[in-house]
Amino acid sequence: MNLAKVVGTVVATRKEQSMEGLKFLVLQNVDLDGNPRDGFVVAADAVGAGVDEIVLYATGSSARQTVMTDKRPCDAVVMAIVDNWETGGDFMYKKGVND
Amino acid sequence: MNLAKVVGTVVATRKEQSMEGLKFLVLQNVDLDGNPRDGFVVAADAVGAGVDEIVLYATGSSARQTVMTDKRPCDAVVMAIVDNWETGGDFMYKKGVND
Amino acid sequence: MNLAKVVGTVVATRKEQSMEGLKFLVLQNVDLDGNPRDGFVVAADAVGAGVDEIVLYATGSSARQTVMTDKRPCDAVVMAIVDNWETGGDFMYKKGVND
Amino acid sequence: MNLAKVVGTVVATRKEQSMEGLKFLVLQNVDLDGNPRDGFVVAADAVGAGVDEIVLYATGSSARQTVMTDKRPCDAVVMAIVDNWETGGDFMYKKGVND
Amino acid sequence: MNLAKVVGTVVATRKEQSMEGLKFLVLQNVDLDGNPRDGFVVAADAVGAGVDEIVLYATGSSARQTVMTDKRPCDAVVMAIVDNWETGGDFMYKKGVND
Repeated sequence: MNLAKVVGTVVATRKEQSMEGLKFLVLQNVDLDGNPRDGFVVAADAVGAGVDEIVLYATGSSARQTVMTDKRPCDAVVMAIVDNWETGGDFMYKKGVND
Repeated sequence: MNLAKVVGTVVATRKEQSMEGLKFLVLQNVDLDGNPRDGFVVAADAVGAGVDEIVLYATGSSARQTVMTDKRPCDAVVMAIVDNWETGGDFMYKKGVND
Repeated sequence: MNLAKVVGTVVATRKEQSMEGLKFLVLQNVDLDGNPRDGFVVAADAVGAGVDEIVLYATGSSARQTVMTDKRPCDAVVMAIVDNWETGGDFMYKKGVND
Repeated sequence: MNLAKVVGTVVATRKEQSMEGLKFLVLQNVDLDGNPRDGFVVAADAVGAGVDEIVLYATGSSARQTVMTDKRPCDAVVMAIVDNWETGGDFMYKKGVND
Repeated sequence: MNLAKVVGTVVATRKEQSMEGLKFLVLQNVDLDGNPRDGFVVAADAVGAGVDEIVLYATGSSARQTVMTDKRPCDAVVMAIVDNWETGGDFMYKKGVND
C-alpha cells in the first residue's frame, strides 16, 4: 500500500455502468515526512475519506477486494484513513497535528 | 486509475481473435493541470471516448472487468470520460472549457 | 498495451514444462514517432509476429488470456501486429512505409 | 520479491472492515549492500516481523496468498524475515551482524 | 518476462509456511548486451538455475503459474534458463561463450 493525501475529486458522468456510485478521489503521494512526492493517482473511495486526509491505498487486483469495487474496472482504492505513523521511534505524522 | 487525453488510434488487423471489435486508443498521460506528462499507453475503449477527450483508464486485471474486455489479453481500458476535476477547491479542468 | 518493435528472439531449452512450444520475442519499446525508447521486454508470441514488425503487447495476468499462454508463467504477450497509428489526424506510422 | 528494512508502523482505525487485525509496516527498500534505496511501501505483516529486521515482501495479487491477507484489499505483504544473502560468494548481509 | 543474471541467494528461515522448500535467487537485470542494468529482484527458482546463469523471470500473478509457486505469496519466478538471444541477426549472448 502507499501513503497519499486526498487533494481533490474527479467527476465523470459517462462511465462503465458498474462504476456508478463510486467516488473518485485524486491522491497525491506523500513521503515519510508527509510531504508531497512525485506522482498522483485517481482512486475509488471505500472508506469515506475526505479532502486533506492522509490515506492508504491499494492498487491492482487488490483494489477490487472491497464490497464497493468488487468486479469493477477499478485499479486503485482507498482502504484506510491514517491516524499516524512512526519511524525510528518518532511519530512522523499524527492526524490533526501535522495536517 | 490515471488521467489521460485521447490523442489517437491504433489499427491492427492481425491480432488475437478475442480482440476483434475492440477499438484501440492512444492515451497521453496528463498532470493535474491537464498538461501532458511522461508516458503514453494504448487502451481499449469501453465507453465510446473520442479524440481530445480527457478520460480515466484502469490497468492490469482490472482492465478486463468490462463486458468488452472480459477474458481478453487487454491490460488497459478507458472506463470513464472526465467532466471535471478539482483540487484545493478550484476546478483544474472542465470539459469544454479547458480543452 | 504498449507499442514495441520486435528486435530479436530468445532461445531457452531448460524451462518450465508448460512453456514448451512458446516463441520468445525481444521487444524494444517505441515512442509515438516509432523511435526506440527506454526499456525492452521479452514476450511470448500469440500472433506470429516477425522481426522488425511493430506490435502491441499486453502484460501481467492479461498476458495469459490467449490460448497459447493460458495458465503459464508468462507475463507479457504479443497480441496484435500494428498496421498503423495516427495522432492529431496524421499517420505517425504505417506498416511497410515507416519500417 | 524485494528486500526491505522494517522502519516503522502505520496506525489506521478507520479502514475497510476486512483489514481489521492486520499490522501495517513501513518498509524501506534496501540495495544488495543493505543500504537504503529509493522508495518505500506499506505492507501487511504475515510473519511477525519487527522494526529493524530485513525482510522479503511480495506485491500485487501474490500479497493476498497468505491466510492473513486472503481476499483483502492488500497489495503488499511481508512473507519472510531474511537471515542472510550472498552474492559473488560473499555474505552481503547476516542478521545480527550487519544490523 | 525480463532477462537477468543469477548473482546470489537469500536465506530466510522464518517465512510464510507455504514458502517452505522454495529457493530464493537474487537476480540482477541485464540489458541486451548482457551487461548489468538498474534494478534487482528476488525470485523463486522453478527450473534449477545456478549462480552466473542468465535466466528469464516472470512477475506478478504469472509468477504463481508453476507447480512450485502455485497459491504462494511469490511475485517473481525464474521460469527459463537462457541459451542465447539474437538481435539484428547477431547473437548478443551465447551460454558458455559470453559468461
